[in-house]
Amino acid sequence: MSEIAELMRAIGLRAREAATELASAPPEAKRKALESAADAVWARRGRIIEANGRDLDYGREKGLSPAMMDRLMLDEGRIAAIVEGLRAVAAQDDPVGQVIAEWDRPTGLHIRRVRTPLGVVGVIYESRPNVTADAGALCLKAGNAVILRGGSESFHSSTEIHACLAEGLRTAGLPEDAVQLVPTRDRAAVGEMLRMVEFIDVIVPRGGKGLVGLVQSEARVPVFAHLEGICHVYVDKAADPEKARAVVLNAKTRRTGICGAAECLLIHRDLVDGLGAQLIADLVAAGVEVRGAEELQHLPGVIPAGAEDFGQEFLDRIIAAQVVADVDEAIAHIRRFGSSHTEAILTEDDATADRFFARLDSAILMRNASTQFADGGEFGMGGEIGIATGKMHARGPVGAEQLTSFKYLVTGNGTVRA
Amino acid sequence: MSEIAELMRAIGLRAREAATELASAPPEAKRKALESAADAVWARRGRIIEANGRDLDYGREKGLSPAMMDRLMLDEGRIAAIVEGLRAVAAQDDPVGQVIAEWDRPTGLHIRRVRTPLGVVGVIYESRPNVTADAGALCLKAGNAVILRGGSESFHSSTEIHACLAEGLRTAGLPEDAVQLVPTRDRAAVGEMLRMVEFIDVIVPRGGKGLVGLVQSEARVPVFAHLEGICHVYVDKAADPEKARAVVLNAKTRRTGICGAAECLLIHRDLVDGLGAQLIADLVAAGVEVRGAEELQHLPGVIPAGAEDFGQEFLDRIIAAQVVADVDEAIAHIRRFGSSHTEAILTEDDATADRFFARLDSAILMRNASTQFADGGEFGMGGEIGIATGKMHARGPVGAEQLTSFKYLVTGNGTVRA
Repeated sequence: MSEIAELMRAIGLRAREAATELASAPPEAKRKALESAADAVWARRGRIIEANGRDLDYGREKGLSPAMMDRLMLDEGRIAAIVEGLRAVAAQDDPVGQVIAEWDRPTGLHIRRVRTPLGVVGVIYESRPNVTADAGALCLKAGNAVILRGGSESFHSSTEIHACLAEGLRTAGLPEDAVQLVPTRDRAAVGEMLRMVEFIDVIVPRGGKGLVGLVQSEARVPVFAHLEGICHVYVDKAADPEKARAVVLNAKTRRTGICGAAECLLIHRDLVDGLGAQLIADLVAAGVEVRGAEELQHLPGVIPAGAEDFGQEFLDRIIAAQVVADVDEAIAHIRRFGSSHTEAILTEDDATADRFFARLDSAILMRNASTQFADGGEFGMGGEIGIATGKMHARGPVGAEQLTSFKYLVTGNGTVRA
Repeated sequence: MSEIAELMRAIGLRAREAATELASAPPEAKRKALESAADAVWARRGRIIEANGRDLDYGREKGLSPAMMDRLMLDEGRIAAIVEGLRAVAAQDDPVGQVIAEWDRPTGLHIRRVRTPLGVVGVIYESRPNVTADAGALCLKAGNAVILRGGSESFHSSTEIHACLAEGLRTAGLPEDAVQLVPTRDRAAVGEMLRMVEFIDVIVPRGGKGLVGLVQSEARVPVFAHLEGICHVYVDKAADPEKARAVVLNAKTRRTGICGAAECLLIHRDLVDGLGAQLIADLVAAGVEVRGAEELQHLPGVIPAGAEDFGQEFLDRIIAAQVVADVDEAIAHIRRFGSSHTEAILTEDDATADRFFARLDSAILMRNASTQFADGGEFGMGGEIGIATGKMHARGPVGAEQLTSFKYLVTGNGTVRA
């Protein structure tokens, strides 16, 4: 066995043991661990910023893009946000032990379905050091042990933040191994994690398409993830013009780099020279490059779309635009080019909205609302470790509750089966 | 691409298409398809029994064991049970479209979490031809297309039963490809199914440890299954003697060949020469071979247990027996030797029962009730396609509801994110 394989195996064993203890840890202890970690992060903000400086130096040497450098950077404001995030998760309801359903049987049995932790979660992420705190906190809240594998760029910052989580666990009398950070930059550690079915119950990759694609294709462990957020907004014939203008602009431009940003606008044929022209003018005025299909190319500012522009995740001030004959053509387009993440319809017609909701199977479908709401915080889940587009177990925003499993607790009175 | 690979790909493509239609099929159409299939099975019972005769001939040639031959055999009584099963699933509530949760957000958004089908289910089973009807019906109820791969022994019987399901679908105006039976005995078809991530969302293996183990280790598609049912019964110091005697005997002897049968009895040390001796005497009197640890070997009828008897799934009139000092030792034993399926505690002490429930993470935990209740029908789920011990998505009995996923339906009023 290679040195890295041995290291990861040891980490896995410790995580499994910690998970066993954590599964029956009192809610109060977990809350205290998170509150104490928040205190520690704030108290040590100087050291964290210093460590982050070393990461930034390393990033500059490696020639990271300005966007990557921005994701990596921590200042007092961002550290305050990390502290707030930890306190928010601390304040959430504890999902473990919640009775999801209960019922009686004619045999006299009483059956309860009760939430339990999943066990051990593996998180593989790129440059954002705050994921160390966010992901660690959500996993802990759900009673899971977690193995964090941060990007090599954020190595020092993540190590400092992780030390604060460890301090929180110690203060609360919980096993420190509940939150482990892989202590090496060696990429072989990622390969090991993906195959550790014995020690890891689910992997959550956080990062770009390259990372997520690698994890999805190589992992033997189940994965909660989305590869891309190719979100569509369909403006129906029965759309309210004011709502449509507000939603389309927000869906594309509020933030262009997040997975809930709209990447394709579908316009009902009857609207092309009316509301459609207006929506495109709004986007162009906001600095968006509109790549339109042939029927839209007579409109001012529209650039001809190529075939590759549909099904593309731009994550930028670019949007593809297509004309459709009706909601069914919009549905067919989304089925063909979408990524099962989030799609919105603008319509005042209930039957049309119902059809859009029934015939599409994306994780999130919106009516008269911006795709940018695709977010655990906005859903009221407190926080999220990511957004999943798979059909199994967790879908949409993945918060603490989605990081749980369940078991059945059955009580009888000497009850035997006939 | 091999001929089998091409065949399976074509089946997969048709299943995907049928799944799309089925996802929005009206509940009434699915109910009608199942009722009509039940009618067809009863009307064609002569042909089914004839086809089964050919399978029995084949089984005799192959030298199948008496137990296997019994599982394979269909007579009018068993066909009546298949018909009843189809009607019971037809009468169940339709899970698709059910609102699992809904809430409002301060932003004005209304969020609903709604059940959807999983998509395409693959079922790989051995000799029991009734699985064709049971599994097909549950998948259809949940709006899934299903690809059935029966055992080569039950080929003719399954083909006849499948024809009845197809007739039901036709009668109801639903796509016949919603329920497909792999039309070859070639084992390569199983290998293809396990890798068809593009076309199959989940595989359910039904059969012995050999089949389930193969599927679990080879599948790239998610699997709902249990490898073994090594169920434990712990008789605590505070057990009620009458309840304990009834439950222990039932848990072991009601049926020994099912996954919920008890395989190991754990007795509190204080009880060895009192209730413990009585429980063992009951088992011995019922013809059970009791393989006991040293502290039990002075009791009449007890055979010395070997190390390999703990963690063993006998599926026979055999039980391992061990003495433990307290509930914690029982928990430790089960953690070490159990298979996360079903365990029972006999106790009148609430704190002890709570500890057993909290510190074990088997899919099903029972108090003062027989492990033989580990069954979808007994849980009130109408039926089950199997019992799962994984932590992801489905756990315990897998009925129609467990064969679904969900999506979020979000409505606003021109709502944009700040």
